[in-house]
Amino acid sequence: MNPIEGHLPVRSPLHDILAPSGIAVVGASADPTKRGYKAMVGLIKDGYRGEIYPVNLKADMILGVKAWPSIAAIPGNPQLALICTPAASVPELITECGRRGIKGAVILASGFGEMGEAGASLEQEMMAKARAHGVRIIGPNTSGIFNLHHRVNLLALDHVKPGDIGIVSQSGNMLLSLALEAQHNGQVGFSTYIGPGNQSDIGFNDYLRYLGEDEHTRVATLYVEGFRDGRKFLQVARDVTAMKPVVVYKSGSTEQGQKAASSHTGALAGSYQMTVDLLRQSGVSVVQYSDEILPVAEGLGLLQKAHGKRVAVIADGGGQATIASDRLAEAGLTLAELSDDTRAKLREILLPQAATANPVDVAGSSDANPSLLATCMETVAADDNVDSVFLVGMFGGYSLRFAESLLGDEMRGAEAMVELSHKTTKPLVVYSLYAPVKPPALRRLHEAGLPIYASIEHAVRVLAALGERGEYLAQCDVVEAKEPVQATEKGRMLLLQAQTQGRNLLEFEAKALLAEHGVRVPDERVARRVEELADIAREFGQQPLAMKVVSKDILHKSDAGGVKLNLVGEAALKAGFEQIVASAHDYDPQAEIEGVLVTPMAEKGVEVIIGMMRDPIFGPVLMFGLGGVFVEILEDVAFRAVPLSRFDAASMVEQIKAKKVFEGVRGASAIDKEALVALLLSVSRIVEAYPHIAELDLNPVIAYPDGYAVVDARIIVEEPL
Amino acid sequence: MNPIEGHLPVRSPLHDILAPSGIAVVGASADPTKRGYKAMVGLIKDGYRGEIYPVNLKADMILGVKAWPSIAAIPGNPQLALICTPAASVPELITECGRRGIKGAVILASGFGEMGEAGASLEQEMMAKARAHGVRIIGPNTSGIFNLHHRVNLLALDHVKPGDIGIVSQSGNMLLSLALEAQHNGQVGFSTYIGPGNQSDIGFNDYLRYLGEDEHTRVATLYVEGFRDGRKFLQVARDVTAMKPVVVYKSGSTEQGQKAASSHTGALAGSYQMTVDLLRQSGVSVVQYSDEILPVAEGLGLLQKAHGKRVAVIADGGGQATIASDRLAEAGLTLAELSDDTRAKLREILLPQAATANPVDVAGSSDANPSLLATCMETVAADDNVDSVFLVGMFGGYSLRFAESLLGDEMRGAEAMVELSHKTTKPLVVYSLYAPVKPPALRRLHEAGLPIYASIEHAVRVLAALGERGEYLAQCDVVEAKEPVQATEKGRMLLLQAQTQGRNLLEFEAKALLAEHGVRVPDERVARRVEELADIAREFGQQPLAMKVVSKDILHKSDAGGVKLNLVGEAALKAGFEQIVASAHDYDPQAEIEGVLVTPMAEKGVEVIIGMMRDPIFGPVLMFGLGGVFVEILEDVAFRAVPLSRFDAASMVEQIKAKKVFEGVRGASAIDKEALVALLLSVSRIVEAYPHIAELDLNPVIAYPDGYAVVDARIIVEEPL
Repeated sequence: MNPIEGHLPVRSPLHDILAPSGIAVVGASADPTKRGYKAMVGLIKDGYRGEIYPVNLKADMILGVKAWPSIAAIPGNPQLALICTPAASVPELITECGRRGIKGAVILASGFGEMGEAGASLEQEMMAKARAHGVRIIGPNTSGIFNLHHRVNLLALDHVKPGDIGIVSQSGNMLLSLALEAQHNGQVGFSTYIGPGNQSDIGFNDYLRYLGEDEHTRVATLYVEGFRDGRKFLQVARDVTAMKPVVVYKSGSTEQGQKAASSHTGALAGSYQMTVDLLRQSGVSVVQYSDEILPVAEGLGLLQKAHGKRVAVIADGGGQATIASDRLAEAGLTLAELSDDTRAKLREILLPQAATANPVDVAGSSDANPSLLATCMETVAADDNVDSVFLVGMFGGYSLRFAESLLGDEMRGAEAMVELSHKTTKPLVVYSLYAPVKPPALRRLHEAGLPIYASIEHAVRVLAALGERGEYLAQCDVVEAKEPVQATEKGRMLLLQAQTQGRNLLEFEAKALLAEHGVRVPDERVARRVEELADIAREFGQQPLAMKVVSKDILHKSDAGGVKLNLVGEAALKAGFEQIVASAHDYDPQAEIEGVLVTPMAEKGVEVIIGMMRDPIFGPVLMFGLGGVFVEILEDVAFRAVPLSRFDAASMVEQIKAKKVFEGVRGASAIDKEALVALLLSVSRIVEAYPHIAELDLNPVIAYPDGYAVVDARIIVEEPL
Repeated sequence: MNPIEGHLPVRSPLHDILAPSGIAVVGASADPTKRGYKAMVGLIKDGYRGEIYPVNLKADMILGVKAWPSIAAIPGNPQLALICTPAASVPELITECGRRGIKGAVILASGFGEMGEAGASLEQEMMAKARAHGVRIIGPNTSGIFNLHHRVNLLALDHVKPGDIGIVSQSGNMLLSLALEAQHNGQVGFSTYIGPGNQSDIGFNDYLRYLGEDEHTRVATLYVEGFRDGRKFLQVARDVTAMKPVVVYKSGSTEQGQKAASSHTGALAGSYQMTVDLLRQSGVSVVQYSDEILPVAEGLGLLQKAHGKRVAVIADGGGQATIASDRLAEAGLTLAELSDDTRAKLREILLPQAATANPVDVAGSSDANPSLLATCMETVAADDNVDSVFLVGMFGGYSLRFAESLLGDEMRGAEAMVELSHKTTKPLVVYSLYAPVKPPALRRLHEAGLPIYASIEHAVRVLAALGERGEYLAQCDVVEAKEPVQATEKGRMLLLQAQTQGRNLLEFEAKALLAEHGVRVPDERVARRVEELADIAREFGQQPLAMKVVSKDILHKSDAGGVKLNLVGEAALKAGFEQIVASAHDYDPQAEIEGVLVTPMAEKGVEVIIGMMRDPIFGPVLMFGLGGVFVEILEDVAFRAVPLSRFDAASMVEQIKAKKVFEGVRGASAIDKEALVALLLSVSRIVEAYPHIAELDLNPVIAYPDGYAVVDARIIVEEPL
C-alpha cells in the first residue's frame, strides 16, 4: 500500500478550512507589534493565492490590501477567518462569520476557559453561536495555523519551507523551536501546523485525523501535554499509523514535569508510562527527548520501515563504531551477525587491519577511496541477517580532510549509495561528522531523499523507530482468529447479583467468573460452617492448605487477620476457621462473614500481577508486572488498552525490565510465558464481555514452568446507575 | 583558590615537548595526500613561530621551507620530532632524535603492538632506544597532537580556534567530530589535543596530569575506551579535579559496545558502571552521550559550580517550561521552592496569568519587554532556596519574532544578565531556541562568557554537572577525622594461619576479623563435636537457631546440604549436626569437616550485600547493593574505590535505584542507614589494613531499623607468594 494514498472513511471538514480560497483577517493592522499585522505579512510574503480581506473599522487599506469595515461588508467568499481581536469581541464576530458563510475561524485571543469562570462562560457563548451558525472553531487561545502548500502562513514564520511534516503542538514555543531547527539544518520542511489551543470545538483527535488524510503530510508530528478523549485518540492513531508514521513527544515524563504541564494547560497529565505504552500499542513512534522530534520525523518520512532490529554498522573509525554499538544496544537494537559469505566479501575489499565482524571498521581502507564505504553498505545490505544499514563516520568529509582529489570518488560513493537505496528494501541511515558542513556528497544524498544525521544518538533513534514501525506494521498484517467475546449466563448473574446487593464479587465468585472464560483457577472449597471442614480436610488430604475469610465487607483479608496458611488436617482447619471468624469480628464487628475459602497452598514460583482499571482518559487498560517490590518500588509494569491482540500480550511480558526473572534465576526453570500470554488475553476478553467490571486484580498470580496459579482475584463491580 | 593557578607537585615533562621552539617533521612531503604534507601545512598556516625542519632525503625545499636529508643534518635545536614514516623506520629514527637532543617524538605509524607479535617486538625495540637516548614517545599509532596556543597544529585541522578545552581522545574521529562541532557552533576553542595511541611510553594518566598543569586548559576532556592503570588514573583525576573540571566520555556502556571497543583498542573495557562510579568518586564529570561532551565542557569551563541542585526556571512558554522540568527531574535536579517573598516580587512585575511557582512561566509578560526576563532571573537568583538559574525559551529572538523595535530592550536584558553573572555566585544557564541563529543579544551574552545552549537536554546536563561538581568540591573541603587503619595482632594471625594452610578464612574467622574492627557480628558458637551442643542449646534457650557446616573445603554451604534453619532445642541441634556432617560427606568425601557454626536466626529485614574485590584495573573496590534479585537481575549496585570517605559511603547507599526499600515498604520501618554507612567504612578500613584479603563478601547483611546483622561472611585470602 502506498502510504500517501491510503484514506480514512470520513473526510475531515478541516480540508476546506485549511485550504481556503479566501481569508478574512479580523483585526488586521498596520502596527508591526500586532498579530493582525503579522498575519497579513505572512500571507502576502508567502504569496497566498486566494483573496485576503483585512477587516478593520478605521483603515481603508492595510499593507496595500483594501480593508473592510466589517465581516458583513466583505464582497467575496472567504472560507476562513483569522480573528485577532480580544476575547470579548469573539462571540459576536462568530455570528457575523456564520452569516457571511465562513466555514472556520482561527481564534487567537486568550481569556476563555483557561481563565476562570467568566472566561468559561464566554467560551460557552462563543460555542453556542458557532454551532448555531455552522462555524468550526480552531482555538481559542491558539498560537495559530499554517498550511504551507497552500501558502497559508497565519503565523508569519520566516524561513519555513513547504515539506511533508505536519505538526500539532500544544505549545507555540515548541512549533517555533522546530521551525528554527528546520531552518538551521536546512533539511526538512512542513505541511500543516495547528495549535489546538483550548479545543473548544475541533480537538486533538480531529487534527490527527486531518493530518492522516492530508496528501501533503507524510509524517504527523504531535507535541502533547495531555489528552482529553484518549481512547478516541488511540483509535484515530491506529487508523493513521496504518498509513503513515505518527511521531509523538509527550511531556510530563516526571512528576515535576506533570505538575508544570498541568499548570500550563490545566489538563491532568495521567501516568506517563501508561500513555507511552498505549501510544506505542497504536503504532505511534514516541520520542523521549524534544530534540529527537524532527530527526525521527524526517527519518520516518524519508526511509522505508525496517523488517527487524538487526543493524549492520559500517564505520571508518573505531571510536564511533563503539559509540554506535552502545547506543544501538541501549535502544533495543542488535548488531546483525554477518554471514560468513558477507565477511569473506568484506575481507576481499578491505585492508587486513579492518574489522569485518559487525560493527565493520574499515580502519583506513577508505582513506584513499571513500566510495569503498558504499561497496561495504551494498555488501551488508545483501545479507539476509541484516535489517538496516548504518553508515558511521566522516563520509562526505574525505575531500575536506584528506585531499581535494578525493571529491570525485566521494561523489561516486554518494551515487552508489543513492542507487543502493533504490534497489534495497532496507533503510540506509547515514551519520556523518561532516553533516553540519554540508559537503557536496552529503548534499547529493540529501537531494536523493536520504537523511543525513549530525548526531549518532539521533541516527540511532531513527533506526529504532524504523525497526519498531516495521514490527508494528508486520503484526497489523497478522489476522488473528478473534475468539468470540461473550458473557456467559453464569458470569452475568454473578455480576448482577453483586451489583444489586451493592457489593463487589467475593473472591470465589471472581474466580468462578474467570473460570467461565478458560482461566485456570485453583481447586478450592467454600466452608460456611465449621462442620463442613471435615469433608474438605478429607478431600485435600495431607497437602498444606490456605484458608481465607469470605466476606463482602472485608477487602483487605490479611489486615483483618482473615488469612491462615499451611494448615494440615481437620483439627488445624477447624482451629483456623475459629480464629479467622474471631479476628474478622474483632476487625469489623459489623462485617458479615459468609465463611472461609480453603485451597491448597500454591507452590513457589514467580509472582506476577495482572490488573485492569478503567482509566478516565484511555478507558479500560490492562497492567502486567512482576509482583512484590518490583511493582511497588520499581514500577516495572506494562500497560495495554483493551482489547489486547496476541502481539500486545506477548510484548507486555517482554517489556518487563526484570524479565530475566522469567528465564529462571538461582537455579529456577524458565516460566511458561505462553500461559501468561493466554491469561492476559482471557482477562482482556472478560473485560470486554462484562462492561460492569470496574476494576479487576489478579494479585498475585504465580507463574510456573508449566502454567500459573491465580492465588487471589478481586473484581470490583461498577455501581448500578 | 583560582582554579587556573593551582598546581601539582611534579611538573610534567610534556610542557617542553608540546611547546617546542623547533620541530623536525620527519617524512615531510609535498604530496597533499601524505601526513608529512598535512603537518607542514598545519604549522605554516597556523603561523607556528618556532623553527620548522622538514626532513626528507630527496627534497631541498618543502612548501618553501628548507629541507634536510636527515635528523643529524638539522642545524638548529628542535625539541620535538613528528615522525610520519612507516613503522620499520622508527627505532633507528628515535636513536637519531636522541643523538640530536630531541626530547619528544610523535609517532603516527601503526604496525606496532596492536598488530601482533612482530609489531610488539618492533615496539619494544623502539622503546629500548627511546629510553637509552632519553626521548619521550607520544604514540605510536597516534592520530597526532595540537597545542593551539603555541600554534603547533600537527593535525592540520582547519578552523579550530585556540580556547581553553584540552582533549585526550583514544579515537581520532572523536577529536575530528568535536572540532567540527566547535567550528559549527562557533562557541568553543581548544588548548591541547593528544591522541595517546599505543601509549608505549607516555600514558593516559600523564596526559591528564599535563592538562591539569597546563595554564591554557580550563577543562580537561577525555574520550576513553579503556584504562590501563586505572588506580593511578583515579589518583591523578582527584588531583586535577580539585583544580579544574575533568569531563570524561567512557565508551562501552553496553556489552555490545564493549566488544566493539576491545576490538578497536585491544584493551579490556571492564564494567562500565564500576568505571563511572569510580570516576565520579574522583570528581570527574561523566557524560553519557558523545554529543554532551562539548556542551558540558563549555559550561563547566565558563560557569561557576552550583552550591546545590535546586534550579529556578524562568520560561516564556509553558511547553518548554514543562520539558525543562522533566529533564531536570530525570537528571536528579529539583525545582527550587521559591520563597513567598520571591513569588511576591515576581507577581509585582508579571501579568496576572503568569505562573510564579517554579517553573516561572512569564506567559506573555515579556512579549513587549524581553529585558523583564533578566529582572526575573535576578529576582530568583537572590532567593536562598535557589542554587542555579535556568532561562528557557526565546530570549534573543524577540526582535526577530515580534518586532525589530524590541532589539534595544533585548540588548538591555542581555546587559542586565551579564551584570547579574558578575554579581551572583550562582550559575546562569541560558537555553534559547534562537541559539542557532546567533542574534545580537545572545552574541553579547556569549562574549561576556555566558554559554548559550540550543538544546534543553544539553543545558540540563550542564546544570547537573555544575551541581555535582559543587557537591564534590564541598565534600572535599570536609576534613574527616581519619580513623587509624591498623591491622590487629589477632587479625593478622587469622590471615597468616589461613594463608600458610593454603585456605580461606572460615566463616567464624571472617566474622572474628570483622569484629576486631568494630563490625557487629551475631552471637555464635562453633561446635566441633556433637557433645558440645548440649551447652550451646542451653545457652541460646528457646530461640530458633541456624546451623552451618564449618569446613575449609566447602565454599557453597547450602549446595552441600550444610545449612539447617529454625532449629530449637538440644535434640534438634544434635539431629541437625548429624545430618549436616552426613550431607557434607556425601557432597565431598574428601572434605575436612571441622564442625558446625550455631547462631540465632536473623530477624527479617532488608537484605543487602557488601563486597570487595581487587579489580585488575582499579585495585580494591567496594560494592554495595540490595540483595537477592536486585543484585542478580537488576544489577542495582554501587561501587567505590577503597579507601572510602564518609561521603562516599553515604552516597553509595543513596545511589541504589530501589532505595525506597530503605525507607520501608509494605508497612516496614525505615532502616538504619547510618549503621550501613559505618559498616561500609569499617570494611573499607579492614581492606586497607589487610592487603592479603583478596576478596570479601558479606552476603547477606540484613539491615534493620536499628543496626544490621552480618548473616554470612566470606574472606578469600591471597595466595602466598
